[in-house]
Amino acid sequence: MIRVKIELSYDGSDFHGWQIQSNAVSVQGTVKEALRELFGEEVPTAGCSRTDAGVHAKYFVCHADLPRAFPWEKFPLAVNALLPDSIAVLRASPAPEGFHARFSCKGKTYRYRIYNERIRDPFEEKRAYFFPRPLSAEAMHQSAQAFVGEHDFAAFMASGSEVTDTVRTVYAASVERRGSVVEFSVTGNGFLYNMVRIMAGTLISEQMGKLSRSIPEIISLRDRTLAGITVPPQGLYLEKVFY
Amino acid sequence: MIRVKIELSYDGSDFHGWQIQSNAVSVQGTVKEALRELFGEEVPTAGCSRTDAGVHAKYFVCHADLPRAFPWEKFPLAVNALLPDSIAVLRASPAPEGFHARFSCKGKTYRYRIYNERIRDPFEEKRAYFFPRPLSAEAMHQSAQAFVGEHDFAAFMASGSEVTDTVRTVYAASVERRGSVVEFSVTGNGFLYNMVRIMAGTLISEQMGKLSRSIPEIISLRDRTLAGITVPPQGLYLEKVFY
Repeated sequence: MIRVKIELSYDGSDFHGWQIQSNAVSVQGTVKEALRELFGEEVPTAGCSRTDAGVHAKYFVCHADLPRAFPWEKFPLAVNALLPDSIAVLRASPAPEGFHARFSCKGKTYRYRIYNERIRDPFEEKRAYFFPRPLSAEAMHQSAQAFVGEHDFAAFMASGSEVTDTVRTVYAASVERRGSVVEFSVTGNGFLYNMVRIMAGTLISEQMGKLSRSIPEIISLRDRTLAGITVPPQGLYLEKVFY
Repeated sequence: MIRVKIELSYDGSDFHGWQIQSNAVSVQGTVKEALRELFGEEVPTAGCSRTDAGVHAKYFVCHADLPRAFPWEKFPLAVNALLPDSIAVLRASPAPEGFHARFSCKGKTYRYRIYNERIRDPFEEKRAYFFPRPLSAEAMHQSAQAFVGEHDFAAFMASGSEVTDTVRTVYAASVERRGSVVEFSVTGNGFLYNMVRIMAGTLISEQMGKLSRSIPEIISLRDRTLAGITVPPQGLYLEKVFY
């Protein structure tokens, strides 16, 4: 058995997230099927995180326990030939001793893209959240600095999540405008369920004057109902994964 | 009856081109349906050009003969509310006297996008032609200059087309690399069926050493079989329309 680290990228539009499911098409299920075809047997895999339906990954890491070695430089093209065009293996290499795609992960960077013009752009339909009222990226950037540091992010977790330790460290947060798109980027050691989408939604809700409290107060009160909307999945991209 | 000039944009991935068809979903049919809902009656329309299935338009012009006036600044949002997200009306204004979206058109700019890396990008799947062997944008740019001027482009027309006057004027042609994408842009007074896709394919075929003649010779010999491949529709964008 050889554990291989697989770096990939996928357009999440047509998938019900990374995680394998019995009744829906997932990225993991699709990758496992390609590996099964290539190696002739079931291949165990694990991803660096779950992603929700419609969420994208510019960069994602999984590991796979293969029954035998493979010329690694040819691995991406061999697997890509068996995958749909919406998933691409970028690189593969033997995993370091003790490596686990999820448990060895030290941090991640997510990006949330908001298409912020009065009239929508058909090419951003499944690639960004269309929000037509004007946003100030500068003001959002200032507000986002409140996320930086070690905090209990219970207010920024989808209700119903079973996670009990809601303390996470955010290393950096920024908002900038690139033409018609406002981009929120956040790097942290881990993220709660829907955390990035609620953070982005809270920055937008604040701009619209819809928050009754400041973001530092919302963090300290640990109350989901004080934070903003959960913005939709198609604007969210996993960008980087650190080990 | 009021003739209105409608400027729009669409992602062609899910459409069988602009032109209305009885048995397939077209952009024109979808726009006509939205106008019928808004005005309560059938609205005649005409587009600036046909586009093929899967071809995109960053910018497209059609005219529509409406039964009554409308507050034009509100027209885009009103129609967009009735259209799928893959089509957006950008602007609408009363058409000048004698205006016809197709017959008044003086020229167009098309762009053809080639994703030129060894490994594909899932986000370019329906937005560019994936071509993994290295291309020199500089050499392609030099070759593309042969298209500029008034020429008989019979060699660059899909066989089976019924057009008999195959003389067109190309005002400008350029190729440049933007990161991983090689872009071919061409502006002319009119284009034959598949002309831009055969031009782009011929520039690629030349790079691969697959042409037996130079591009000026292919033009003057008027023989489709001497030109290169017809590259696929998803890389093609209508960019500008001149009146």
